[in-house]
Amino acid sequence: MLGIIRVLTTDDENILQEHSRVMKREFNIESISRCIPDQWNGIHSEATQRLAEPKIEALVKSMVENDGVTAVTISCAADPAVESSRKLVNVPVYGAGEVGAHAALMISRKVGVLGITPDVPPNIAKILGDHLLDYTWPEGVSTTVDLLEEDAKKRAIDACQNLVNKGATSILFACTGFSTIGLKMELAKHIHVPIIDLVEAQGIAYSLTRK
Amino acid sequence: MLGIIRVLTTDDENILQEHSRVMKREFNIESISRCIPDQWNGIHSEATQRLAEPKIEALVKSMVENDGVTAVTISCAADPAVESSRKLVNVPVYGAGEVGAHAALMISRKVGVLGITPDVPPNIAKILGDHLLDYTWPEGVSTTVDLLEEDAKKRAIDACQNLVNKGATSILFACTGFSTIGLKMELAKHIHVPIIDLVEAQGIAYSLTRK
Repeated sequence: MLGIIRVLTTDDENILQEHSRVMKREFNIESISRCIPDQWNGIHSEATQRLAEPKIEALVKSMVENDGVTAVTISCAADPAVESSRKLVNVPVYGAGEVGAHAALMISRKVGVLGITPDVPPNIAKILGDHLLDYTWPEGVSTTVDLLEEDAKKRAIDACQNLVNKGATSILFACTGFSTIGLKMELAKHIHVPIIDLVEAQGIAYSLTRK
Repeated sequence: MLGIIRVLTTDDENILQEHSRVMKREFNIESISRCIPDQWNGIHSEATQRLAEPKIEALVKSMVENDGVTAVTISCAADPAVESSRKLVNVPVYGAGEVGAHAALMISRKVGVLGITPDVPPNIAKILGDHLLDYTWPEGVSTTVDLLEEDAKKRAIDACQNLVNKGATSILFACTGFSTIGLKMELAKHIHVPIIDLVEAQGIAYSLTRK
């Protein structure tokens, strides 16, 4: 059983369980999703990341102790508290940003990254190194909640088209909110390079561990 | 359709098609396997790698032009001619060593690598960086053909057990010959850390591209 940590507070069960649904549908992975408290706009700055880290660590410990999960994935591109959580529990801990960046490097040497903030998540930039072609974000978006606006998908697709025009041979999503809105399926109709969705990348990581 | 390049010359159709069978069984991937000529012991030194490279490049071009494959994977841990082949064709070219190393980094920070030569393949070492815990190879083995000996599997399992005893949190195979002999399935009965098989890693890479 995989524990999925959402770094966005929500009382909408449909949004909370979205990543678990993808895991089941795409990889036949059983999982439990839980979210951190009191961060209704998720992580979108250094300050909100620092605020979230102790909450994430507590949730990692609790999911291992109380839910009995055999691995935990922190479903956020910024990889908050991934390193520190590894020291707290004796099961594997994945970070969405890390596994996504490594998945992109399996298939591409010119990775175009789509996020929600003005800066590429540092851990993704570090792993991609010279293979980070460019980074961008959809116009008018600054938190994961903004992605739920009606035309956010169209603006995200336009941003990805720009990355492809610049020579990207893959698109890496650097926010799991793109998974929540199902961007990949729509984007694949418009661009023809591989697209790395972070929930799918976390599913691949868990599948590699499970076998 | 995926083109698989085997860097071991063989006239045994069963051995030649082994990686294609795994691709079909594990990932439902259609593929064609072809091998380079006149290297019955595969690649097991710098000299044999240099000898193989122009043959691999020719085979990459031929499989794209004549077989119509939409991606090519060079099924050898040393990643021979991967970079140079990318310049010759306009389809993705994967290297088994590269994709395997990135797959290992998705799930582990202490990777134990099992190869067949006294030195870890340089491209794998470069990608793993500080996360390469240790490298070893089965006693008495020096080419991929030696893996076909009766007790080679037992010696490979002993070598992996040593890596786990040293603290490895994953095992990465650094020879596709281990796939040919089906080592992973047997090894998984003896050790309890994730095992990255290079044919499976290549399957994941192609699956990421195909979607």
